[in-house]
Amino acid sequence: MAVYTQLGAETMAAIIAEFGVGPLVSAKGIAEGVSNSNWLIETEGPRSDGASGPARFILTMYEKRLDLEDLPFFLGLLDHLAARGCPVPRTIHDSDGNAFRLHEGKALALIEFLPGVSVSDPTPAQAEAVGAALAQIHLAAADFPMARANGLGLADWVELAEACGADGLHEIDPRLDRLIADELVHLAHHWPRDLPQSVIHADLFPDNVLILGDRVSGLIDFYFACTDITAYDVAVTHAAWCFNSDGSRFDPALSAALLAGYESVRPLSEQERAALPVLARGASMRFLMTRAYDWMNTPADAMVTRKDPMAFARRLEFYSDMGNAGIFDAR
Amino acid sequence: MAVYTQLGAETMAAIIAEFGVGPLVSAKGIAEGVSNSNWLIETEGPRSDGASGPARFILTMYEKRLDLEDLPFFLGLLDHLAARGCPVPRTIHDSDGNAFRLHEGKALALIEFLPGVSVSDPTPAQAEAVGAALAQIHLAAADFPMARANGLGLADWVELAEACGADGLHEIDPRLDRLIADELVHLAHHWPRDLPQSVIHADLFPDNVLILGDRVSGLIDFYFACTDITAYDVAVTHAAWCFNSDGSRFDPALSAALLAGYESVRPLSEQERAALPVLARGASMRFLMTRAYDWMNTPADAMVTRKDPMAFARRLEFYSDMGNAGIFDAR
Repeated sequence: MAVYTQLGAETMAAIIAEFGVGPLVSAKGIAEGVSNSNWLIETEGPRSDGASGPARFILTMYEKRLDLEDLPFFLGLLDHLAARGCPVPRTIHDSDGNAFRLHEGKALALIEFLPGVSVSDPTPAQAEAVGAALAQIHLAAADFPMARANGLGLADWVELAEACGADGLHEIDPRLDRLIADELVHLAHHWPRDLPQSVIHADLFPDNVLILGDRVSGLIDFYFACTDITAYDVAVTHAAWCFNSDGSRFDPALSAALLAGYESVRPLSEQERAALPVLARGASMRFLMTRAYDWMNTPADAMVTRKDPMAFARRLEFYSDMGNAGIFDAR
Repeated sequence: MAVYTQLGAETMAAIIAEFGVGPLVSAKGIAEGVSNSNWLIETEGPRSDGASGPARFILTMYEKRLDLEDLPFFLGLLDHLAARGCPVPRTIHDSDGNAFRLHEGKALALIEFLPGVSVSDPTPAQAEAVGAALAQIHLAAADFPMARANGLGLADWVELAEACGADGLHEIDPRLDRLIADELVHLAHHWPRDLPQSVIHADLFPDNVLILGDRVSGLIDFYFACTDITAYDVAVTHAAWCFNSDGSRFDPALSAALLAGYESVRPLSEQERAALPVLARGASMRFLMTRAYDWMNTPADAMVTRKDPMAFARRLEFYSDMGNAGIFDAR
């Protein structure tokens, strides 16, 4: 949540000019993105949709963490999905046809601005729309020609647990080291090996969905997108949308709506449905482990807000409870 | 440079609804404001200027530092100046006619979005336009009925110097404690007492001016505005625009253009012109003292960038050098 690089107005104008989107009218650094700098850009246009009025874009500077070699995958995916009618922002190519440019060694991409706000208390109608939009990108990505390995899969959770150490986990919460050790064994034995794969978003939290009324106006932030089990993305989205933020309260109406919305576009197979409980445990583990690692490696007084790992330990316990197994049953 | 308060989309929509500017379409936290939180807001409109297309606003939440009792002065001034054709944003009053609202004890104001960018390397044509815009607000504020004392005047520089202490100043730079002590004596003896006063901006750095081409599209951030010597504002603006950022290089072309632009709208009296050298020394002292104080009270590793006090010590030395006295002479 910051702008890491200062770009003077003259530099900004020169950068924007390379994208052929008309003269720069305004540039405001926006407080989004954990490891990128982002600006909301306005130009005189013309707008890409042909409508009149100012044209707006998001300019992103990739500061770190992201491998430059992954950028063609992320940006190409946006173009692929947008061309197939998915609610994702298109990328603006520069006058040489490149999807990104380099400025002092850092990559810069200009993408379409989409209207909408990120809800914090979704309604079932909104969860249904999110489910449908998720299924839409899964289908539309089928003929996307690039692939990218998931950098936060089961093997990585094991590595993160080792990096945290049992003592470190115990310090976050006395029951956490045991919970994680047991769960990693369970997941290693039960993780499905033969489910359909596709490009998945892998991080579709409410923050990454723009909504207008009950309509999804944008899916954004594809920087964890990768090739992995399609139904795992349903499980991630389920864990992200169907609980209150600290994970202490499950909302069955949101759960039913999300799944119904998804299946209205892409019905789950019996095998996929049967795997959802373990996939949801894996999804909980993925966010539990990255949060635990970040918790231990972020000073308590840092400007960055630490996210509570226990919010996902609670989700993990919920999904592991056999009494809750029915939530994924076909209706 | 941050957003200190998180406002959920539902809360934001409810706040915006109270201002009667149409349904919320987008809200992005922007990385502006040192002690406020700011969002760039878009609604379906209608726009206040009657044109079609989305309506845009800046929503500001006043987090601290600012006395709530000063807000009617700051916001009333914007409305007063905008009504007289000055390039400042209008405030949007809520449905009860209030210029600001309270949300959980914090004040919120919605102001017009203005296009334009803040230049880092101004041209003489831009400096001339800034001078003219400054004179325009000085004239337009003449019949503004409110007043506000300057909270950063000579007496406050003395207090800040005492709070820093000679040792602290010496630590920033070995020559700084002597320079400041001598200068405060000089200013106390020579500060003009009988020059015309008006409402002044008092902080018109390039950051606070929006520019499109050679035109000033907006003067913003009036949170240091106060009632003080009119020509002092010319001196502040001169110190802010006519040097490179570290204060080591004076640009005579920018200086001449700024003064010519100002005088094209409001000619300086002989007394005002004669006082510009001492007023410019005072303006340098004002930013030198706040920067020195902030330097000593901000950890070197804080996320906030410390601004170098010496950049204004150099300006002070420039203005104190009798060899430079001619820069303010009438042409």
